[in-house]
Amino acid sequence: MYVVIAGCGNLGRRLAESLSSRGEEVVVLDSRPEALETLSPEFGGFRVEGDAADTLTLSRTKLDRADLAIAATDDDNVNLFFSQVARFLFSVPRAVARVHDPAREDVFRRLGVETVCPTTAAADLMLAMSSAGRRQAGL
Amino acid sequence: MYVVIAGCGNLGRRLAESLSSRGEEVVVLDSRPEALETLSPEFGGFRVEGDAADTLTLSRTKLDRADLAIAATDDDNVNLFFSQVARFLFSVPRAVARVHDPAREDVFRRLGVETVCPTTAAADLMLAMSSAGRRQAGL
Repeated sequence: MYVVIAGCGNLGRRLAESLSSRGEEVVVLDSRPEALETLSPEFGGFRVEGDAADTLTLSRTKLDRADLAIAATDDDNVNLFFSQVARFLFSVPRAVARVHDPAREDVFRRLGVETVCPTTAAADLMLAMSSAGRRQAGL
Repeated sequence: MYVVIAGCGNLGRRLAESLSSRGEEVVVLDSRPEALETLSPEFGGFRVEGDAADTLTLSRTKLDRADLAIAATDDDNVNLFFSQVARFLFSVPRAVARVHDPAREDVFRRLGVETVCPTTAAADLMLAMSSAGRRQAGL
Protein backbone atom coordinates (compact mmCIF):
# COMPACT_ATOMS: atom_id res chain seq x y z
CA MET A 1 0.00 0.00 0.00
CA TYR A 2 1.27 3.51 -0.80
CA VAL A 3 0.27 6.04 1.88
CA VAL A 4 0.79 9.81 1.91
CA ILE A 5 0.53 11.45 5.34
CA ALA A 6 0.18 15.21 5.75
CA GLY A 7 1.56 16.44 9.08
CA CYS A 8 4.42 15.03 11.12
CA GLY A 9 3.29 15.95 14.64
CA ASN A 10 2.62 13.31 17.31
CA LEU A 11 -0.17 11.71 15.26
CA GLY A 12 1.46 11.84 11.82
CA ARG A 13 4.79 10.58 13.12
CA ARG A 14 3.15 7.67 14.95
CA LEU A 15 1.16 6.64 11.88
CA ALA A 16 4.16 6.99 9.57
CA GLU A 17 6.37 4.83 11.79
CA SER A 18 3.69 2.16 12.36
CA LEU A 19 2.69 1.88 8.70
CA SER A 20 6.31 1.85 7.56
CA SER A 21 7.19 -0.89 10.07
CA ARG A 22 4.28 -2.92 8.67
CA GLY A 23 5.95 -2.75 5.27
CA GLU A 24 3.78 -0.09 3.67
CA GLU A 25 5.33 2.53 1.40
CA VAL A 26 4.96 5.84 3.28
CA VAL A 27 5.59 9.50 2.43
CA VAL A 28 5.29 12.12 5.20
CA LEU A 29 4.83 15.74 4.38
CA ASP A 30 5.41 18.68 6.73
CA SER A 31 6.45 22.29 6.22
CA ARG A 32 8.60 22.18 9.38
CA PRO A 33 11.94 20.43 8.80
CA GLU A 34 12.31 19.99 12.59
CA ALA A 35 9.06 17.98 12.65
CA LEU A 36 10.37 15.63 9.94
CA GLU A 37 13.56 15.17 11.97
CA THR A 38 11.58 13.64 14.86
CA LEU A 39 10.94 10.52 12.75
CA SER A 40 12.87 7.56 14.12
CA PRO A 41 16.02 6.44 12.25
CA GLU A 42 14.18 3.14 11.53
CA PHE A 43 11.52 4.96 9.50
CA GLY A 44 11.89 3.51 6.02
CA GLY A 45 9.70 5.96 4.10
CA PHE A 46 10.22 9.31 2.42
CA ARG A 47 10.09 12.80 3.92
CA VAL A 48 8.88 15.75 1.89
CA GLU A 49 9.27 19.30 3.20
CA GLY A 50 6.40 21.48 2.10
CA ASP A 51 2.90 22.76 2.65
CA ALA A 52 0.01 20.25 2.61
CA ALA A 53 -2.20 22.99 1.18
CA ASP A 54 0.05 23.54 -1.83
CA THR A 55 -0.82 21.37 -4.84
CA LEU A 56 2.69 21.63 -6.32
CA THR A 57 4.12 20.16 -3.11
CA LEU A 58 1.46 17.46 -3.25
CA SER A 59 2.60 16.46 -6.76
CA ARG A 60 6.09 15.90 -5.31
CA THR A 61 4.60 13.28 -2.94
CA LYS A 62 3.31 11.30 -5.96
CA LEU A 63 -0.15 11.56 -4.45
CA ASP A 64 -1.70 10.31 -7.73
CA ARG A 65 -0.22 6.86 -6.99
CA ALA A 66 -1.44 6.72 -3.35
CA ASP A 67 -3.89 4.09 -2.11
CA LEU A 68 -4.58 6.12 1.03
CA ALA A 69 -4.17 9.77 2.05
CA ILE A 70 -4.06 10.60 5.75
CA ALA A 71 -4.59 14.20 6.89
CA ALA A 72 -2.95 14.50 10.29
CA THR A 73 -2.09 18.19 10.61
CA ASP A 74 -3.35 20.18 13.60
CA ASP A 75 -5.55 22.35 11.41
CA ASP A 76 -9.01 21.06 10.44
CA ASN A 77 -9.12 23.37 7.42
CA VAL A 78 -5.80 22.13 6.06
CA ASN A 79 -6.94 18.55 6.69
CA LEU A 80 -10.15 19.13 4.76
CA PHE A 81 -8.32 20.80 1.88
CA PHE A 82 -5.66 18.08 1.66
CA SER A 83 -8.24 15.26 1.81
CA GLN A 84 -10.42 16.83 -0.85
CA VAL A 85 -7.52 17.49 -3.20
CA ALA A 86 -6.28 13.92 -2.66
CA ARG A 87 -9.69 12.39 -3.34
CA PHE A 88 -10.84 14.45 -6.28
CA LEU A 89 -7.77 16.02 -7.93
CA PHE A 90 -5.36 13.09 -7.46
CA SER A 91 -8.06 10.33 -7.48
CA VAL A 92 -6.85 8.73 -4.24
CA PRO A 93 -9.41 6.00 -3.42
CA ARG A 94 -9.48 6.69 0.34
CA ALA A 95 -8.78 9.66 2.59
CA VAL A 96 -8.84 9.64 6.39
CA ALA A 97 -8.63 12.94 8.28
CA ARG A 98 -8.16 13.98 11.87
CA VAL A 99 -10.92 16.44 12.77
CA HIS A 100 -10.66 18.34 16.04
CA ASP A 101 -14.12 19.89 15.91
CA PRO A 102 -16.66 17.03 16.21
CA ALA A 103 -19.33 19.31 14.72
CA ARG A 104 -17.43 19.29 11.41
CA GLU A 105 -17.14 15.50 11.04
CA ASP A 106 -20.40 15.33 9.14
CA VAL A 107 -19.14 17.83 6.52
CA PHE A 108 -16.00 15.76 5.92
CA ARG A 109 -18.00 12.56 5.57
CA ARG A 110 -20.41 14.06 3.08
CA LEU A 111 -17.36 15.03 1.01
CA GLY A 112 -16.17 11.41 0.93
CA VAL A 113 -13.53 11.70 3.65
CA GLU A 114 -13.43 9.28 6.59
CA THR A 115 -12.79 11.05 9.90
CA VAL A 116 -11.32 10.42 13.30
CA CYS A 117 -11.90 12.91 16.10
CA PRO A 118 -9.37 12.40 18.93
CA THR A 119 -11.83 13.69 21.54
CA THR A 120 -14.53 11.28 20.36
CA ALA A 121 -12.02 8.42 20.29
CA ALA A 122 -10.89 9.27 23.85
CA ALA A 123 -14.50 9.60 25.08
CA ASP A 124 -15.45 6.21 23.59
CA LEU A 125 -12.44 4.58 25.21
CA MET A 126 -13.17 6.16 28.60
CA LEU A 127 -16.81 5.10 28.44
CA ALA A 128 -15.73 1.53 27.65
CA MET A 129 -13.31 1.65 30.58
CA SER A 130 -15.97 2.90 32.98
CA SER A 131 -18.37 0.15 31.86
CA ALA A 132 -15.64 -2.46 32.34
CA GLY A 133 -15.08 -1.15 35.87
CA ARG A 134 -18.77 -1.34 36.59
CA ARG A 135 -18.90 -4.98 35.54
CA GLN A 136 -15.78 -5.83 37.55
CA ALA A 137 -17.24 -4.22 40.64
CA GLY A 138 -20.53 -6.07 40.09
CA LEU A 139 -22.47 -2.80 40.29
CA MET B 1 -22.10 4.32 40.05
CA TYR B 2 -21.13 7.78 41.36
CA VAL B 3 -18.72 9.57 38.99
CA VAL B 4 -16.92 12.89 39.47
CA ILE B 5 -15.61 14.49 36.26
CA ALA B 6 -13.10 17.34 36.34
CA GLY B 7 -13.35 19.55 33.27
CA CYS B 8 -16.40 20.37 31.16
CA GLY B 9 -14.78 20.89 27.75
CA ASN B 10 -15.68 18.73 24.74
CA LEU B 11 -14.45 15.55 26.44
CA GLY B 12 -15.85 16.14 29.93
CA ARG B 13 -19.22 17.28 28.63
CA ARG B 14 -19.52 14.24 26.35
CA LEU B 15 -18.66 11.84 29.18
CA ALA B 16 -20.98 13.59 31.63
CA GLU B 17 -23.94 13.43 29.26
CA SER B 18 -23.31 9.80 28.25
CA LEU B 19 -22.81 8.52 31.78
CA SER B 20 -25.80 10.46 33.07
CA SER B 21 -28.04 9.12 30.27
CA ARG B 22 -26.94 5.61 31.27
CA GLY B 23 -28.33 6.29 34.72
CA GLU B 24 -25.07 6.95 36.56
CA GLU B 25 -24.89 9.67 39.20
CA VAL B 26 -22.57 12.33 37.76
CA VAL B 27 -20.98 15.52 39.09
CA VAL B 28 -19.07 17.79 36.68
CA LEU B 29 -16.61 20.32 37.96
CA ASP B 30 -15.26 23.31 36.03
CA SER B 31 -14.02 26.75 37.04
CA ARG B 32 -15.67 28.31 33.98
CA PRO B 33 -19.43 28.80 34.45
CA GLU B 34 -19.82 29.15 30.65
CA ALA B 35 -18.38 25.64 30.21
CA LEU B 36 -20.92 24.19 32.64
CA GLU B 37 -23.67 25.96 30.70
CA THR B 38 -22.85 23.93 27.56
CA LEU B 39 -24.26 20.79 29.21
CA SER B 40 -27.49 19.72 27.55
CA PRO B 41 -30.77 20.43 29.38
CA GLU B 42 -31.26 16.64 29.61
CA PHE B 43 -28.12 16.26 31.76
CA GLY B 44 -29.42 14.86 35.03
CA GLY B 45 -26.30 15.30 37.17
CA PHE B 46 -24.83 18.08 39.26
CA ARG B 47 -22.62 20.99 38.20
CA VAL B 48 -20.00 22.38 40.58
CA GLU B 49 -18.19 25.62 39.75
CA GLY B 50 -14.63 25.54 41.01
CA ASP B 51 -11.02 24.58 40.51
CA ALA B 52 -10.15 20.87 40.10
CA ALA B 53 -6.80 21.58 41.78
CA ASP B 54 -8.45 22.95 44.94
CA THR B 55 -9.17 20.31 47.58
CA LEU B 56 -11.92 22.39 49.22
CA THR B 57 -13.78 22.46 45.91
CA LEU B 58 -13.23 18.72 45.58
CA SER B 59 -14.88 18.14 48.97
CA ARG B 60 -17.96 19.92 47.63
CA THR B 61 -18.21 17.27 44.87
CA LYS B 62 -18.44 14.53 47.57
CA LEU B 63 -15.43 12.91 45.96
CA ASP B 64 -15.04 10.59 48.97
CA ARG B 65 -18.23 8.80 47.84
CA ALA B 66 -17.16 8.43 44.19
CA ASP B 67 -16.67 5.05 42.51
CA LEU B 68 -14.79 6.67 39.64
CA ALA B 69 -12.94 9.97 39.12
CA ILE B 70 -12.37 11.18 35.55
CA ALA B 71 -9.78 13.88 34.89
CA ALA B 72 -10.79 15.53 31.62
CA THR B 73 -9.31 19.03 31.81
CA ASP B 74 -6.98 20.25 29.06
CA ASP B 75 -4.02 20.42 31.43
CA ASP B 76 -2.02 17.23 32.07
CA ASN B 77 -0.71 18.62 35.37
CA VAL B 78 -4.18 19.41 36.69
CA ASN B 79 -5.33 15.96 35.55
CA LEU B 80 -2.47 14.29 37.41
CA PHE B 81 -3.11 16.32 40.56
CA PHE B 82 -6.87 15.68 40.53
CA SER B 83 -6.43 11.93 39.89
CA GLN B 84 -3.86 11.57 42.65
CA VAL B 85 -5.92 13.49 45.18
CA ALA B 86 -9.00 11.45 44.24
CA ARG B 87 -7.17 8.12 44.57
CA PHE B 88 -5.17 8.74 47.71
CA LEU B 89 -6.79 11.57 49.68
CA PHE B 90 -10.43 10.69 48.92
CA SER B 91 -9.87 6.93 48.47
CA VAL B 92 -11.65 6.75 45.10
CA PRO B 93 -11.14 3.18 43.83
CA ARG B 94 -10.51 4.17 40.19
CA ALA B 95 -9.23 7.25 38.39
CA VAL B 96 -9.03 7.68 34.61
CA ALA B 97 -7.18 10.67 33.17
CA ARG B 98 -6.80 12.25 29.75
CA VAL B 99 -3.09 12.72 29.09
CA HIS B 100 -2.04 14.81 26.11
CA ASP B 101 1.66 14.01 26.29
CA PRO B 102 2.05 10.28 25.53
CA ALA B 103 5.48 10.33 27.19
CA ARG B 104 3.79 11.00 30.54
CA GLU B 105 1.32 8.10 30.43
CA ASP B 106 3.77 5.81 32.17
CA VAL B 107 4.11 8.20 35.14
CA PHE B 108 0.33 8.33 35.58
CA ARG B 109 0.06 4.54 35.43
CA ARG B 110 2.77 4.00 38.00
CA LEU B 111 0.78 6.31 40.29
CA GLY B 112 -2.30 4.10 39.95
CA VAL B 113 -4.14 6.23 37.40
CA GLU B 114 -5.51 4.73 34.16
CA THR B 115 -4.85 6.94 31.15
CA VAL B 116 -6.28 7.74 27.77
CA CYS B 117 -4.23 9.76 25.27
CA PRO B 118 -6.45 11.20 22.51
CA THR B 119 -3.59 11.12 19.99
CA THR B 120 -2.87 7.46 20.73
CA ALA B 121 -6.58 6.63 20.54
CA ALA B 122 -6.83 8.42 17.18
CA ALA B 123 -3.68 6.73 15.84
CA ASP B 124 -4.96 3.28 16.85
CA LEU B 125 -8.28 3.95 15.16
CA MET B 126 -6.64 5.23 11.97
CA LEU B 127 -4.31 2.23 11.84
CA ALA B 128 -7.29 -0.09 12.22
CA MET B 129 -9.08 1.80 9.43
CA SER B 130 -6.09 1.54 7.09
CA SER B 131 -5.81 -2.22 7.75
CA ALA B 132 -9.52 -2.62 7.07
CA GLY B 133 -9.07 -0.81 3.76
CA ARG B 134 -6.16 -3.05 2.87
CA ARG B 135 -8.25 -6.16 3.48
CA GLN B 136 -11.20 -4.77 1.52
CA ALA B 137 -8.94 -3.96 -1.40
CA GLY B 138 -7.46 -7.46 -1.21
CA LEU B 139 -3.93 -6.02 -1.07
